[in-house]
Amino acid sequence: MVRMKFSIELAYEIFDRSADFIFNIEAAQTPHQTVVSEKLDVSQQVRQDSYTDQRLAARFLRLQAAAGPLTVRYEATVDINHHAASPTALQEMPISTLPLEALPYIVPSRYCQSDRLQKFATAEFGMLPRGYGRVKAIQEWVRNHVKFQSGSSNGSTSAMDTIIERGGVCRDFAHLMIALCRAVNIPARFVSGIDYGADPSLGPTDFHAYVEVMLSGRWYLFDPSGVSPPMGLVRLGTGRDAADAAFATVFGMVRSAPPVIQIEAITDGGGQLVMPAICDDLLSTSGLETETAA
Amino acid sequence: MVRMKFSIELAYEIFDRSADFIFNIEAAQTPHQTVVSEKLDVSQQVRQDSYTDQRLAARFLRLQAAAGPLTVRYEATVDINHHAASPTALQEMPISTLPLEALPYIVPSRYCQSDRLQKFATAEFGMLPRGYGRVKAIQEWVRNHVKFQSGSSNGSTSAMDTIIERGGVCRDFAHLMIALCRAVNIPARFVSGIDYGADPSLGPTDFHAYVEVMLSGRWYLFDPSGVSPPMGLVRLGTGRDAADAAFATVFGMVRSAPPVIQIEAITDGGGQLVMPAICDDLLSTSGLETETAA
Amino acid sequence: MVRMKFSIELAYEIFDRSADFIFNIEAAQTPHQTVVSEKLDVSQQVRQDSYTDQRLAARFLRLQAAAGPLTVRYEATVDINHHAASPTALQEMPISTLPLEALPYIVPSRYCQSDRLQKFATAEFGMLPRGYGRVKAIQEWVRNHVKFQSGSSNGSTSAMDTIIERGGVCRDFAHLMIALCRAVNIPARFVSGIDYGADPSLGPTDFHAYVEVMLSGRWYLFDPSGVSPPMGLVRLGTGRDAADAAFATVFGMVRSAPPVIQIEAITDGGGQLVMPAICDDLLSTSGLETETAA
Amino acid sequence: MVRMKFSIELAYEIFDRSADFIFNIEAAQTPHQTVVSEKLDVSQQVRQDSYTDQRLAARFLRLQAAAGPLTVRYEATVDINHHAASPTALQEMPISTLPLEALPYIVPSRYCQSDRLQKFATAEFGMLPRGYGRVKAIQEWVRNHVKFQSGSSNGSTSAMDTIIERGGVCRDFAHLMIALCRAVNIPARFVSGIDYGADPSLGPTDFHAYVEVMLSGRWYLFDPSGVSPPMGLVRLGTGRDAADAAFATVFGMVRSAPPVIQIEAITDGGGQLVMPAICDDLLSTSGLETETAA
Repeated sequence: MVRMKFSIELAYEIFDRSADFIFNIEAAQTPHQTVVSEKLDVSQQVRQDSYTDQRLAARFLRLQAAAGPLTVRYEATVDINHHAASPTALQEMPISTLPLEALPYIVPSRYCQSDRLQKFATAEFGMLPRGYGRVKAIQEWVRNHVKFQSGSSNGSTSAMDTIIERGGVCRDFAHLMIALCRAVNIPARFVSGIDYGADPSLGPTDFHAYVEVMLSGRWYLFDPSGVSPPMGLVRLGTGRDAADAAFATVFGMVRSAPPVIQIEAITDGGGQLVMPAICDDLLSTSGLETETAA
Repeated sequence: MVRMKFSIELAYEIFDRSADFIFNIEAAQTPHQTVVSEKLDVSQQVRQDSYTDQRLAARFLRLQAAAGPLTVRYEATVDINHHAASPTALQEMPISTLPLEALPYIVPSRYCQSDRLQKFATAEFGMLPRGYGRVKAIQEWVRNHVKFQSGSSNGSTSAMDTIIERGGVCRDFAHLMIALCRAVNIPARFVSGIDYGADPSLGPTDFHAYVEVMLSGRWYLFDPSGVSPPMGLVRLGTGRDAADAAFATVFGMVRSAPPVIQIEAITDGGGQLVMPAICDDLLSTSGLETETAA
Repeated sequence: MVRMKFSIELAYEIFDRSADFIFNIEAAQTPHQTVVSEKLDVSQQVRQDSYTDQRLAARFLRLQAAAGPLTVRYEATVDINHHAASPTALQEMPISTLPLEALPYIVPSRYCQSDRLQKFATAEFGMLPRGYGRVKAIQEWVRNHVKFQSGSSNGSTSAMDTIIERGGVCRDFAHLMIALCRAVNIPARFVSGIDYGADPSLGPTDFHAYVEVMLSGRWYLFDPSGVSPPMGLVRLGTGRDAADAAFATVFGMVRSAPPVIQIEAITDGGGQLVMPAICDDLLSTSGLETETAA
Repeated sequence: MVRMKFSIELAYEIFDRSADFIFNIEAAQTPHQTVVSEKLDVSQQVRQDSYTDQRLAARFLRLQAAAGPLTVRYEATVDINHHAASPTALQEMPISTLPLEALPYIVPSRYCQSDRLQKFATAEFGMLPRGYGRVKAIQEWVRNHVKFQSGSSNGSTSAMDTIIERGGVCRDFAHLMIALCRAVNIPARFVSGIDYGADPSLGPTDFHAYVEVMLSGRWYLFDPSGVSPPMGLVRLGTGRDAADAAFATVFGMVRSAPPVIQIEAITDGGGQLVMPAICDDLLSTSGLETETAA
């Protein structure tokens, strides 16, 4: 089991009379991720709506803040209990046996236009044996063909841009890997977390984007950018792509400061807690999804 | 109440050893749409999985067919019970009071890149008074600036293309209206049905695409293409855009024939059943959505 | 006649062993623009190739610089002799009488995809009476629908982006106006100069992009951004779009500083020289082009 | 020497009162391509303007036709005198020695957005030794990654689409090869001709698109689609991309029939004339271009 302690601080200046915010910075609560403790501070005394997407476990915080400064600070300690599997044992699922809940993740989405990448993906990956190896080939292709470059992409950059322009940040790596998986009918989705273990030369600790791919009935974690080991993922948001899992969506005239984030792994003397590390197994923090047939 | 009787016949030729299909042609079952009778025929004796998306009431039929011809025929009679509202009474909802279930419909999606249309939509519609009038202005803008032209668009055409190229079919009208609504923070989504009442000069009876916009806590129906009155909508699929509500998704080497569709409205002597018509009220076939706050 | 004195200073740091540069910063020499004096300084002692595109009068300076700093400084005084015409007297030219040299400027180019804007332009401007009024309507449309915003566009931004995203700098205004003119078969091209008279709040003096439109056999000047009066144009480059008229094209690993530019109008006591100003006439610095028929 | 005899017949129905046409179907007259005989028939008795672009030798025919049918028929016999070179002897030219006339062919154009493909091309071809081998590698990459599919592209398809969607016709192959060459600073341009020797299964004889790449000071011919040997090229048009070399540009309400084209190679008894064939040498029909330095 991995225990992660982290804090996120977001600071804004609101210029309008008011501005609305929807945050997705609280740790998801799932059978595999337990919140040991958490604390949320909002600098303005305003009504807060908290709600959870039951299917995806994503927790949203909505508030309307008044003109002036706003700071939102969240800290939590979470325990993450991974399901590990030997990659070679994992299978792609035929369309005919995909669980219902996987179906939204084989169609194209805003940043993952898998429909337009079908010929490309079929040419590159169509001949490979079905299974984990093919997913790994897609991940390697993305890692080998795209260069990590801060500032080379923006909020409207999609997989179609990244596959040509060959540069981007973690979210662009994730979008391209997702689009390529879906283009060969492998369900893939977007997970947001924090880049624990990232090389400090890439900049201060930041949010991170991972990919989940369904193999043998479970969602397994991949980090196509290679920046942060999947074992270090604290799940914040889950969805089709970044449109579903933004850490903050802001409505109004607002200036934002860069997020200030800290994260560390905690181990105790008893040895039950381990440090997140790169490992040979594939890791999942989802249960086995079963098909919903009539 | 409106009673609609319709049939859909889809014919395919499968060239591979097998091909997978996911259909979304069965009538949704909702508090506002009751299936009086229905019948499904699949020409091949194959296992069929039927499942329903609980949130959206969309019914999916999945099957794996063998090489050779495949015909799928569905017919149903449904009763539709509309909630009608005077347009002037309907309000846009501030972000702070939007029900949780509306939130996926203010973010961009594959065919509705509302993020890129924000400046355009703000310039055109940002100054208009909030409310139904603004939604109607968006619908009129789309209707006045886009020309209905069969064959002018294809499966990868999105709102970004349509806003420039100014031609398309019903799904393109729907995508553009949805994108423009979301770009000014009005939740909007895609509904598929059948083009009851369409001008025969547009071709044989076909599937149709409508828009649902949330006003005062309900989803109200709009037909930006002006082809088919919202009162004639038989709800088949619902989603963010056409990626979620395709009538058929096909995996494999398959040739399709054009769908053969018939639809008629049924009235009885007692007068409880009316013909679908264009009306001044806005119509909804959804209940009042309430906010999911903590 | 207008006399303009200007200087341009470009500074680079070259990281490779060498880097190649093609500059287009020298004043064009045409029957309407006379170079009174000029001076070019290149900080590195390297071979310089100077050549002139005879058709467009654009002057190019090519050089290969070594690792380290490079500064290129050019200053000139030029006399510009405008042909002025009353707008109402100017006609659009039918395709059948367009001079040969205008034909490259009715086809689409990299940043002016007039082919894709044909339906849009026909819908907006197709019904207007032919002539200057239609060109002015296009210019006004661009000025009213696009907002001047430094940093809102980049080197790959084209008319297709600007028409949707509604923000940009002078080159984006020019590209969009050019694309819309070509889309209704009016020849239009790109001219680069310096933003004499620009509002200092837009930033330091910079290069500027204008549009030339052919009416009644001559190219007339337009400034769709409204930033700098056409009378203040010192012609540097001319072409289909910014791809043809970049002030500097750099090949190699190079860091650039922002250009440092100064420009002033010079008047003498005799009154032959006037200050560039906004005027009601249309101005041209090209001669009458005559058709090249067999 | 190769002698080619060909005819082109274009048929239109004009619905407006009149329509304008610009044709580029006459054989270019160059030092390497001599028109032995030619004949042009236009079915309507209308004024015809013929003019030649002196730099590119392209011949244009412009006419305004009246409502009703229009047929344009051109036939010619041309002698083509190829310059052949051993590929291994040919060099890429450094930017610093490129002839002036090559410079328009290293910048991006409508259908060849080389600026956006720079990272892609540098990653794929940046490490290869400079020279013919690199051009051949680009040609092979295009041939291996794009599939010839009639109807898979349209008039707005560009290199950016083809590199992703991986299907197209000869013009798409040409655009992609051109864009990739320019992206690594190799001048490349578009040539139109007729698909002599094409496999009849691809359809009736049609226009064809070739690529010219500058190596060691000359333009050499490449056929990235592999459909027609460069030795069979009859040069009609030359330019940056298809926007410059359309066989017909039509202004007005017009219906076109597919072109009817015939082409054959002619050999005599004396043996001076050979059949066009695939050969190991690179072929050029341009002279040596020399740099225009000050």
